[in-house]
Parts: sequence; C-alpha cells; structure tokens
Amino acid sequence: MERKIITSPSIMCADLLNLESSVKALNQAGVDALHIDLIDGAFSPSMPLGIDTVKRLREKTDLPFDVHIMANNNEWFIQQVLDIGVQQISFHYETSLHADRLINLIKKRGVKASVALNPATSLSCLEYLLPQLDNVLLMLINPGFAGDKSEKQVTYSEVKIKDLARRIRATERDIGIQVDGRVSLESIPDLIRAGASNLVLGSTSLYIPGRTLEENKRQLDLAIAQGLSVH
Amino acid sequence: MERKIITSPSIMCADLLNLESSVKALNQAGVDALHIDLIDGAFSPSMPLGIDTVKRLREKTDLPFDVHIMANNNEWFIQQVLDIGVQQISFHYETSLHADRLINLIKKRGVKASVALNPATSLSCLEYLLPQLDNVLLMLINPGFAGDKSEKQVTYSEVKIKDLARRIRATERDIGIQVDGRVSLESIPDLIRAGASNLVLGSTSLYIPGRTLEENKRQLDLAIAQGLSVH
Amino acid sequence: MERKIITSPSIMCADLLNLESSVKALNQAGVDALHIDLIDGAFSPSMPLGIDTVKRLREKTDLPFDVHIMANNNEWFIQQVLDIGVQQISFHYETSLHADRLINLIKKRGVKASVALNPATSLSCLEYLLPQLDNVLLMLINPGFAGDKSEKQVTYSEVKIKDLARRIRATERDIGIQVDGRVSLESIPDLIRAGASNLVLGSTSLYIPGRTLEENKRQLDLAIAQGLSVH
Amino acid sequence: MERKIITSPSIMCADLLNLESSVKALNQAGVDALHIDLIDGAFSPSMPLGIDTVKRLREKTDLPFDVHIMANNNEWFIQQVLDIGVQQISFHYETSLHADRLINLIKKRGVKASVALNPATSLSCLEYLLPQLDNVLLMLINPGFAGDKSEKQVTYSEVKIKDLARRIRATERDIGIQVDGRVSLESIPDLIRAGASNLVLGSTSLYIPGRTLEENKRQLDLAIAQGLSVH
Amino acid sequence: MERKIITSPSIMCADLLNLESSVKALNQAGVDALHIDLIDGAFSPSMPLGIDTVKRLREKTDLPFDVHIMANNNEWFIQQVLDIGVQQISFHYETSLHADRLINLIKKRGVKASVALNPATSLSCLEYLLPQLDNVLLMLINPGFAGDKSEKQVTYSEVKIKDLARRIRATERDIGIQVDGRVSLESIPDLIRAGASNLVLGSTSLYIPGRTLEENKRQLDLAIAQGLSVH
Amino acid sequence: MERKIITSPSIMCADLLNLESSVKALNQAGVDALHIDLIDGAFSPSMPLGIDTVKRLREKTDLPFDVHIMANNNEWFIQQVLDIGVQQISFHYETSLHADRLINLIKKRGVKASVALNPATSLSCLEYLLPQLDNVLLMLINPGFAGDKSEKQVTYSEVKIKDLARRIRATERDIGIQVDGRVSLESIPDLIRAGASNLVLGSTSLYIPGRTLEENKRQLDLAIAQGLSVH
Repeated sequence: MERKIITSPSIMCADLLNLESSVKALNQAGVDALHIDLIDGAFSPSMPLGIDTVKRLREKTDLPFDVHIMANNNEWFIQQVLDIGVQQISFHYETSLHADRLINLIKKRGVKASVALNPATSLSCLEYLLPQLDNVLLMLINPGFAGDKSEKQVTYSEVKIKDLARRIRATERDIGIQVDGRVSLESIPDLIRAGASNLVLGSTSLYIPGRTLEENKRQLDLAIAQGLSVH
Repeated sequence: MERKIITSPSIMCADLLNLESSVKALNQAGVDALHIDLIDGAFSPSMPLGIDTVKRLREKTDLPFDVHIMANNNEWFIQQVLDIGVQQISFHYETSLHADRLINLIKKRGVKASVALNPATSLSCLEYLLPQLDNVLLMLINPGFAGDKSEKQVTYSEVKIKDLARRIRATERDIGIQVDGRVSLESIPDLIRAGASNLVLGSTSLYIPGRTLEENKRQLDLAIAQGLSVH
Repeated sequence: MERKIITSPSIMCADLLNLESSVKALNQAGVDALHIDLIDGAFSPSMPLGIDTVKRLREKTDLPFDVHIMANNNEWFIQQVLDIGVQQISFHYETSLHADRLINLIKKRGVKASVALNPATSLSCLEYLLPQLDNVLLMLINPGFAGDKSEKQVTYSEVKIKDLARRIRATERDIGIQVDGRVSLESIPDLIRAGASNLVLGSTSLYIPGRTLEENKRQLDLAIAQGLSVH
Repeated sequence: MERKIITSPSIMCADLLNLESSVKALNQAGVDALHIDLIDGAFSPSMPLGIDTVKRLREKTDLPFDVHIMANNNEWFIQQVLDIGVQQISFHYETSLHADRLINLIKKRGVKASVALNPATSLSCLEYLLPQLDNVLLMLINPGFAGDKSEKQVTYSEVKIKDLARRIRATERDIGIQVDGRVSLESIPDLIRAGASNLVLGSTSLYIPGRTLEENKRQLDLAIAQGLSVH
Repeated sequence: MERKIITSPSIMCADLLNLESSVKALNQAGVDALHIDLIDGAFSPSMPLGIDTVKRLREKTDLPFDVHIMANNNEWFIQQVLDIGVQQISFHYETSLHADRLINLIKKRGVKASVALNPATSLSCLEYLLPQLDNVLLMLINPGFAGDKSEKQVTYSEVKIKDLARRIRATERDIGIQVDGRVSLESIPDLIRAGASNLVLGSTSLYIPGRTLEENKRQLDLAIAQGLSVH
Repeated sequence: MERKIITSPSIMCADLLNLESSVKALNQAGVDALHIDLIDGAFSPSMPLGIDTVKRLREKTDLPFDVHIMANNNEWFIQQVLDIGVQQISFHYETSLHADRLINLIKKRGVKASVALNPATSLSCLEYLLPQLDNVLLMLINPGFAGDKSEKQVTYSEVKIKDLARRIRATERDIGIQVDGRVSLESIPDLIRAGASNLVLGSTSLYIPGRTLEENKRQLDLAIAQGLSVH
C-alpha cells in the first residue's frame, strides 16, 4: 500500500484579516486540510483565533477542518466544533479527566478522534487509548508558545515518532501520526522516515516568507517525496 | 458644551473572514471606534475572536480600538492588548481582585480605563473607583450570551443609566457611559436621554440585515440626533 | 390583603433513610412546601443530599419543592432541578457571575426565582435584581454549617429583614422574604413582625425532638399566629 | 486456595427513598458489601447521594460499606467516610496529588485502601502504588455517566483486567480487582476468567427489572460459578 | 476619652534573617504590635514570609501579633495563626465566601477580628459585618505590590477613612481603623485627623533608611501628636 | 571516576529566626548546598518559608542554593528564584502542564534543572524528559507533610532509586539522584548503594537533637563513606 502524507497548513500562519481569500489560495495550492489551533488563554498564554471565526469560515470552504484544542475545558470546546462541522479533533490528554468519553463524543458524530500530547508527555498514557484513536498529534514544541523564537523543536522528535510508530503497529490499526512545531523543509524527510504521516505546516515550510505559496508548495512536495523514497 | 455620542460598532458583527475590507468600510462610514470583544471561554461560554486577529488588524487601520475584556485573568489580557496598542480597555469588576491596580496599569500607558459591569451588578461597587475612570461600560444583556436570542435587554436599562449619570455628576469629572446589548434604532433616543454617551452597535442598529451600511448609518444618525434634541 | 406565612420544613431534618414516609407525614401535617438543600461540598464542606434522591422523591409527592442551591456551578444545578420539576429555586448571589441570566433561565420554565444571601452579604447587591425576583432567601446562619452547634443565628436578623422589607415595598411588587437558620418557636413571632413571609423549619421548630410532628406543628401555628397578630 | 468473588451491589440502583428496607433486602439476599458512589458534581456532572444519607444508613446495617469517591478534593471525602465507619475506600488516581498519603490515611484507620482508575488511565501509574493497595477499582465505563445509555462498556475490559492481574502476581500480594460499569450476567464469566474478584452490580445484573431480587441473585450466582469453573 | 493611636510596624521591613533581635529592638523602641503579612502567592504574586517563621517567633516575644492574611483560602490561614497564638487577624472580604463564619472562628478564640479591604472595595460590603468587628484594615495601596515603586497611595485615602469613621459612629461601638500602604511621616497627621487609629509602619515612617530606629520613632511620635492635636 | 555525594541540609530545620548565623554554621561545617523548600500552601497545606527571606539570605552567603518548589504555579516560582540567583531548581512534574518549557527556562539561565516526583509517581513520566535534566529529586515522604510524625519513609525507596539509576545509565548522561524525606544515618548507606548521589538532610541526620552540628556532620560523613565503600 502506498503511503500518503497529509499536508495541514496551520491557520495561525494564514492572513487572519482576509481568511476567505487566504484559505481559497491554500485550497487551490492543493493542501489536504486546514489545521485550526484553538487556545483558551489558560492552557497556555495565547488565544490566536475565535470560535465564531471558525464558524464563518466553515460556510466558505469544503477543505477538511482539523482542529487542535488547547484548553482546560475540553468537552465544551469539542461540542462547539462538532456543531460547526469539522473532520478531525485533537484534544490534550494532559487536561482530560474523561479521555475515553471525549473520544466517544467525537466518534459518535462521525469525526476523526485524535489525542494531542505535549513534548514531555510519555506515550505510556496511550496504553488503552491508542486502538480507539484515528490519529495522535505529537507536539514538537511546547504548544501555545510558537511565538517565542527561543522555543526550538525538541531533540527527541524522531525517537518519539519511532516509539509511537512501533506502538501503532502493535495495534494493527491505521492510526495517523501528526507532527506539529517547527516542521521545516529540512526536517521533513527525517520526520517522514521516522513515521510521521501528517505534517502541520507553518513559517518554516509552506509559509516561508519571500516566496509565493506555489513555490513553497513545490519545495514541500520535494521534501515529502524525499522522505518517502527508499534510502 | 455640546454633547457628542460615540459610535462603536462591535467587531463581532463585522465579516470575520474579510476583516480588512470590512473594517475599512466602517471607517469610511464614519464610525468613531471599533468595539472589540475578547472572551476567554470561561467567563462565559464563548470565544468569538482571537488576540492574533486583533494584532494583525492593528497594522491595517487607524480606527481607535475599544476593547471589552470578558475574562477571569484580567491582568494577562490587559497586558496583551496594551502591547498591541489600543485606545480604551474595559475589564469586568466582577472578576477583578485588584481593580485599582488594573486601572493604574492601563492609565500608565496613556490608554483610557473603563470598568464593565454585568446587568445585575450594583453601582455601589464604583464608590471609590469612579473618579479614576474614563468610562463605565454598562452591559444591558448578559455578556457572552448575545447569540442566545431569548436574551433580551434588561428592563432596568434606563434606570441604571440615570443612576450612573447622577453618580458621575457628583464626581464633577468627564466620564463616559457606554451601553452594550441590543442597542437598537428604537431604543437609542431613550438611552441617550437617560445619559448614555457611547453606543456599542450590533445587529439591531448598524448591522440591520437587508440594508447597506450607509443606509443603516443614516438611520443611526437620525436616532442619535433625536436622542440629543430637547424634548 | 391577608398575610400568609409559608412553612417549608428542611429535608435535612427528615428521616433520610425513610424519605417516602417521612415526607408523606409532613404533607399530612399540612406544611406548604419541602425545602431541599443541595450543597456541592465545595461551597461549604457538606453534601447532605444527592440529586437522584430528589428525582426519586419527585415521583412520590405533590408537595411543592423549594430548592436551595449552595454551589459554585449554579447553572448546572439549576438545569438539574429544572428537569426534575421544582416550584422554587434559590441560588447564591455570592457565586453567580451572571445572576440576571440565571433568573431568566428559571423564570422561562415557569419556576419561582429566588436569590440566597449569606449572612454577611449586603443588600446593595439586589439594587437591580430585586424587581426580577419572586423571593429572597436570607441565611441567618452560615449556610452548610448547620451541623456545627456553635453556629448561632446572627444578631442582625431582624434588622436585615426590615431593611429588605423596605426595599421590597419600594419595588411595589410581591416578593417573598424567606428566612433560614435556627428559626425557632421563640424567634418566629419577631421574624414575622420584621417582615419574613416564608420560614425554613428545622430542629428548633418543626423537628423539636421528643414531641410528635403534630404537636410541633400546633406550636408552630401558634407562634405564626402570634407573629401575625397586631401588637 | 479457593477463589472467592465479592458481590457489591451499587447503592445507586437501590430504592433511594426507602434505603433502610432496600438495604435490608440486599443483606438477606446474601450480598457481600454495599458499593456506595459519592460524586461531587465537579469530577463528573452528577451527585447521586449525600454524605448524611450514608451516615444515617451506617446506623442501620452491618453490611460492609465499600465507598467509591469521584471527587476533586479526595482528602475531604476520605475523612468524611472514615468518620462514618466504612470498610473500603476507592479514590481516583487522576485527581490525587498525594496518592501515597491518602492510602496511608485510609490504612491507618484499619480500612481497605483502593485506587480507582478511569477507563483510559494506564496501569503504569500503579508502578509503586500497587503493593500498598488492598484493591484496584477498574472503571469499565466513564465514571459518573452511567445514566447516559450510549455509554457502553469499553472494548478493552478483559485485556486491562489481565494486564492488572499480571502486575498483581508480580507483587506476590493479595490485591483485589474490582470491576464497575455495565457488569452483566453475560459478561461476568469472562470478567472473572480474566481476573476480576469483585463485581459492582447494577441494572444489568442484580437489578434487572421485571424479576425479584432473589431470582436475579440466583442468576448471578450461576454466572459467577461459570466464571470460576475450569474450562 | 483620650484617643490612642496604635503603632504596628510591618514585619516585611524588619531584618528577615535576624528576626529575633530585630523584633526585640522594635519592642524596646515601644511599638504596640507587630504587623505580620501572610501572602499565599496567588492572592497577589508575593510570598514574603512563611508560617513556620511566625511560629518560631511566637516563642520569642510577647509583642502582640497582628496578622494580615492575603490569601484565597482564608479559613486555612486563620486556623494556622490561631494555633500559633496571635492577637488580631485581618482577612480580605474580597476572597471570603463565609465572612460571618470566619469572624466567629476568630472571636471564639478570644482574638480580635478584622476585615481587610482592597483600595477599590466599597464600604457597602460592611453593612452587616461592621458591628461584629474589632477593626477594619483599609489598604491604601494594592496589597502584595508594595515592592512596585510605581504603586502610590490612592488619592481617596482620607475620604474613605472619613466614610468609614461615619459608619463606625453609627454602630456606637469601638472599632479600630487601621491604615496600610505608604503611611508616611508627612501623611500621618491627616490620616489621624480623618479617623485612622492604627498605623501600619514601613519604609516611609519607622524604617526610613539612614536613621536609627529611635530617631524614626521620635519623628513618628511627633507626627502622631500633631494628628491628635486640635487644629 | 570517584563518586561524590552532595550534602544538602534543608533550611526548614535551620533556626528560622537566626538564619544568618545558622547558615554560616552550616557553611563552616562543610555542607555542599542549602536545600530550600518553597511551598505555596495549596500544593500541600504548609508554607514554611517566604521568598523575601531567600532573597535576603542570598546576600549573606555563597553556599549554592538548591530550591525545591512545591507549588501549583511553577512558572511564577521559577522566575522568582531565577531572579534571586540560585544554582539548582526542582519543580514537581505532577503540577506541570508544560514541563519541557520549564526546563528550558531554567537551563537558559545557566541553572541546573531538576524534576521532583512524589512518592507514588511512576518513573514512566520521565521517558522523554530525563536526558534534558541535571537532577531528579525523589520524594521519599509525601512533600509538605514532614511535620506529620506518622509520615514514614516509603517502603519502596531503594527499588525506586535503583529503577531510576537504570534509566539514567541508559541515557549515558550524568544526572543526579537526590533523595528527600527521613534520610537518616541508618538508611544513608543503603540509599547510596542503591544509587542516590545527593542527600537532603534534616532532623534524622544533620540536625539530630542533643548533638552539635560538628558531631552530626562527622556521623554523616561516616555513613556516606560506608555507602561508598565496596561491599
């Protein structure tokens, strides 16, 4: 079976004042989904985007919405985005008392369920959750602090991806590995070789300044192809 | 001295996907300020708009920004919008342990300081705060629940505005009375006569569907003129 | 118009293990309502009664249910008891960020809305709320600590009742004054003369040990008659 | 050594209004303990039973009390039920900062100490706790949501029980495995074979509607015998 | 009756590393009490002093201890200092759900009960509390931010003291007015004339750098005498 | 390479009223660092020491400061002690949402980063954190409850130390193992043999009553030598 890498540009890097045209351009450039970061200002000190903006955007595009909730009250945020109509929801294990229930709430509505893990969080928390999931989102920087330029991708990115890939193979299920945080043209081949199947794209890949979206997309496709090639 | 009514359309009613052009149109229509609602999802179950959106918008328009914070952690939100560069900040008394200090933080940066009060909150909490303030924001519906159509303007709007106007006269200072919540073309004359000097405008005034912005603005100006006329 | 005093025995003093017969006896003794205390263990360190017990009890008696919520998350408890079917709900002002909204939620369902105040809470918080209310519950001991025998009725009971009665007369509406906390046969005449119209009854009135319910009820009726008589 | 299965009917399924007779019937039917669920309304949105009810019940029966605390403030609830006099206490690891201390508090009073785990919680959290425990309570549905009929027993029940049984054997101690959540006559044999030694019984076993308690008990005994038989 | 002004140097300005000798010196200089600030780091971002330090200090001096609790969990801190043995306790009204109960806890132990108010807090909250109190502590700067040199004494100090003095006279009781925050040799006469009876002393009075404690005490006595003299 | 055991007397056992001379004596006795416990009163019900005391002490001694934060808001406490100037900071994993980020904050300032674990916390949480750390602090009693004499050292001390030593060897890095809680002259040899490299010293070692500091230090050195000797 051929491996397919999903490209998910982060809405945080789009033109927030002209989202309608900005997202249309992403769609034409051929990306697979729109990655939407929802932060409540308490999980981490940031609140880039509001829910009403997502609601309005839903009416304007058919691009799949892939929502990453960074919040303390996961159930409320999950209900909000389920009602808007999205295709995948990641919530953080670290702030979930009833993680199994949240997964059920998401899947019952026909939406892909995903758990997000902070860089330091051990994979052992997935022991019984993994087979219920469609995707795991591995944060490669501390979530909500992307604006802090001293935040670098953690040194253990590839090790953690490989560990997760091994656990997924043991379940004999098709579960995605999404990576988020300083995913760059340079690191993409290695991340893919380690096992990543879904790339959240920001200022170090699809939004590199000084080039057109099309040029960046071309470079991205090359980096992905390199990661998929036998070596 | 001639009374001047400030018109502050709420950003929540603008086109959230095309904010750049939407706000430019408001500016050309001659409004006085842009009213920006920031809700943290915990103060009330809503989070219409993100901080990064406000930051981007700041670079595109010179319209004064009038921010209404609905949050539990007021100090963090105040610091965020002070750094963006805004002209007036309202925070809720109900969630402020150190209200006096927050006012100082705002004024020290040359920004107008305002306290927002929920409908049910008594004016007696302003006993010592009022002389330090540039504005008081009276909520006429429960903040954060504007989307709930069963939320109607409270019946005591005019009484509360008059009570506040009396308290302001006793300070012998120039302090604005801003009103927010179902402010409509029909109610504007009475709100102004009661003492309101700043109108937050939404779907029952400047954004009435089916008319152009210019038509709504003309109706609004008539309603304001009626409120200011002797009677 | 003849004044009517409502008698509301507290469920906390009933036989919690044999509620069905215990409440039937209260009904036969001719009380007006059942006062149900719901405490969440966080508002005060006590949780005398569960919601499912109330639900089961609802199916067994037609006695009006008068619920006193002592909780941090008022909205959740209000929704729970509205779904059970009750006749009056009191929630605490001290833990209500959106008090006006909670009153609307209650009244929209045809239930009487009441605000409860801790002993120390000033009546000035009722400035704009009072006309929306059907009842005010004045706590005469600190709520949730009734089991602590050193808790005595506050010395300012009568003063506070009279102050509230004066504020109610100014609204020209029919709003009840309910009193709760060490309401005794001895103090009832004075509480009624001060303005109380609804008595929450416990171990110092309807449940005085060593006498039958009927005997206690007879003494209670005498005390009430004394309070209502001209003097 | 002969294996003994402990039967613990949940008080939530008993007649909450007539607990005295209802519990007496359970005792006569020959159950081993009464399973008491205490929820604070915050851990999950439910509060089925109050502490005072448990206190009253304690005076009326000698049946062992097996309390399952679902709360954020575990220490307070533990102290409450220790003072009432119970035989086993389970508290959730997920809300325990000082789990080792809580176990000590319980054991110091001669009461059996147990940790409860939500379905999704990994067993790796028991690494150092297990040898201190008398029992582990594995939740097979999300605790506090039993009333939601779409909540089904998790698919990984038997796997998790077997994993735990393996960890217990490594400690060479006698530690019970209690299972709770949709434990049914059909599933009991498999749960027992996997390693369960204590069954929390509700509407799918001891309380199946339309049959007498005695009939249900007889079916239950058969299911248990089947699980214990060699196969 | 002669008015007596109580002098209460703040322990925060003493030599924290040599408290035994430092407090002995204060005692010899003739101050009336030691003002001890306990902050929990959450009420405001500061935690100057630990409880164990106060406990140790209690064994070494007979000077009355006057504790100012700035905390979210008032009951816990009150119990701690009651057990240590102190003479007066102030807790903040703004973080007290059960203020009446806290006052009782303090008075039951024969200790003076006091409520502390942030600068912005209205005196209307004292409506029913005042007659139960021995003292009211008026903060003249935002508590916990004394280290921030831009924090100046609020402009409404004298007005608020006078308002409180008027309310106290109406109770016909002997209730102290303690003032805290940039109380200086220059402002003391006016504060006393407005009605202050208890001065919390810091770096602008008893601890003015460059002078001995005795010299500062002499200047302080002069300033107090000036405030007490007829004018 | 010769193994070196670091001795870190806890400031909680020093003379809190005479810290300057007390710490000087420790320095002269030849200890390696001063272990400073900062508790916020919420993590556990204790607050032994204030931040200002640490600040003052910093000016008086060159002894390395090794701070153990027991708090809910780790970031705030870390910033406070970084500004004071300390040599090592331990924060608890159990209250850290963004543990990776906190480690970066500490290391960026040239300070040693350490994670503290409660007794019951599994080492699996260190899966990806360990290689970033300079030290791990294993609590051998429940932190913040040292004053409770019934708190004994956990029975699994040596097992947990050995497990951690094995994980550290796998990283091929030099990471310290600090142990805290009833570390005694009797247990030190075994703790060292298990792998401990840093001893927090209190009332069962360096502060044994009835002996001079020098005598205790001599006994301590013997116990350490015994632990280091081949056996």
